[in-house]
Amino acid sequence: MRRRWALGVEYDGSGFSGWQRLNRPGQPERRNEPTVQAALEQALSFVAGEPVAVVCAGRTDAGVHAAAQVVHFDGPAQRDPRGWVLGTTSRLPASVCVNWCVPVADDFHARFSARARRYRYSILNRPVRPAMQRQYLSWVRPPLDATAMHEAAQYLLGEHDFSAFRTVHCQAPHARRDLQQVSVTRTGEVVTVDIQANAFLHHMVRNIVGSLLVVGQGERPGAWMAELLAGRDRALAGPTAPSAGLVFLGPLYPAQWQLPAEVTS
Amino acid sequence: MRRRWALGVEYDGSGFSGWQRLNRPGQPERRNEPTVQAALEQALSFVAGEPVAVVCAGRTDAGVHAAAQVVHFDGPAQRDPRGWVLGTTSRLPASVCVNWCVPVADDFHARFSARARRYRYSILNRPVRPAMQRQYLSWVRPPLDATAMHEAAQYLLGEHDFSAFRTVHCQAPHARRDLQQVSVTRTGEVVTVDIQANAFLHHMVRNIVGSLLVVGQGERPGAWMAELLAGRDRALAGPTAPSAGLVFLGPLYPAQWQLPAEVTS
Repeated sequence: MRRRWALGVEYDGSGFSGWQRLNRPGQPERRNEPTVQAALEQALSFVAGEPVAVVCAGRTDAGVHAAAQVVHFDGPAQRDPRGWVLGTTSRLPASVCVNWCVPVADDFHARFSARARRYRYSILNRPVRPAMQRQYLSWVRPPLDATAMHEAAQYLLGEHDFSAFRTVHCQAPHARRDLQQVSVTRTGEVVTVDIQANAFLHHMVRNIVGSLLVVGQGERPGAWMAELLAGRDRALAGPTAPSAGLVFLGPLYPAQWQLPAEVTS
Repeated sequence: MRRRWALGVEYDGSGFSGWQRLNRPGQPERRNEPTVQAALEQALSFVAGEPVAVVCAGRTDAGVHAAAQVVHFDGPAQRDPRGWVLGTTSRLPASVCVNWCVPVADDFHARFSARARRYRYSILNRPVRPAMQRQYLSWVRPPLDATAMHEAAQYLLGEHDFSAFRTVHCQAPHARRDLQQVSVTRTGEVVTVDIQANAFLHHMVRNIVGSLLVVGQGERPGAWMAELLAGRDRALAGPTAPSAGLVFLGPLYPAQWQLPAEVTS
């Protein structure tokens, strides 16, 4: 008997070339470009006793972390959830772990069933680069006006064509996304951008943050964000903010899927 | 002209064999045992244009981090503080930075002028080991009663002989220390121990935490801490908690020394 499983996966993306597997299934991974997907599939396949392929809620770039990435896979039905969690984690590198596992309905899909994704971007704003926590912080030396950044970000709320914040490498069929929540707050030297949308284009969070940083340094007014959005021209927006500092907090699923509270809304 | 300078130093201790230099001044460092002190002295010496030796507020063990280690050194008087901060940081490995530099009176001493030291110990308390933030977290699988740990810790307040929590390698002439504040709090899956004393014995924080973890798992009542203290026998106390999770928040100096607010009380 086989069935579909969902897993909550946490990782420190510092040492990875991103989420997505670069090798073909069953072929060895490129040694200099480890990916989270390949590490996870290798560990799961060992526990399953057969090759396992996973589908994730949101692919992350090189250096991006995840607090609650969600994947689904089809595998043996008779394993218990605790066995998947502890067995898989014990076969994973120290930078990846599995926090939970639940059986799900056969039509659950980690990507298509998610109704939202949440990201957090953390910026250390001070004269000196970070030493502690440097894997989890981007660094901006000039003083940032977090209130101005927050106000500017609100222009992005709602459903829009986000072409202005999409990398040329983005393969999505269209650029319409529904930006549901965004906030910029300061706690001491750290400025935090929290952002939630139904889905994100490739580099969309980092490109939005890059433009907010232009506003935060007083180089543009907040209404510039509305101009950028309307112009749909990536070349006019700010630079892509670095991957360090970006954490995929996780997807959100409707309650019907009976997933853990941290990924249910 | 020469004068005395004080520096605020931040470091991620993961890749270091601790604070204290193992080589002699001017001799090469042992390659497999890098120390924070040697890295800092090498960078400062480059900026000073002459050999510089530093004295720190609190030596940290291998794997222990510091948010605001304070050091003093004697060097050229004509450098400006910004030059020391940025020049030294640019010569340091990514895991170390200098956050501030101030000129101090000739009788200021980073160690002897400090009237207190503050440490924080962070424990991830859940079934699965950490992936993100694993350099900054210790991990305990069984559920911990943070309230019981907090109450137990209060038995340690005040001036006592802390021989029960002192490693045999400790070279301090006596074991009397004044424990000024200690709290244990839980935020989600993380249990945090904050502790302040006039000074600490070698391994004192980690040995206290090790015993509090025994209480937190319900194996001993809170009053056991008072028994341990009175018995002055290291062999009766809990095991030494791991170095990951321990951060030296920094020393506190009397206001007369005119140091930055973060290290003044």
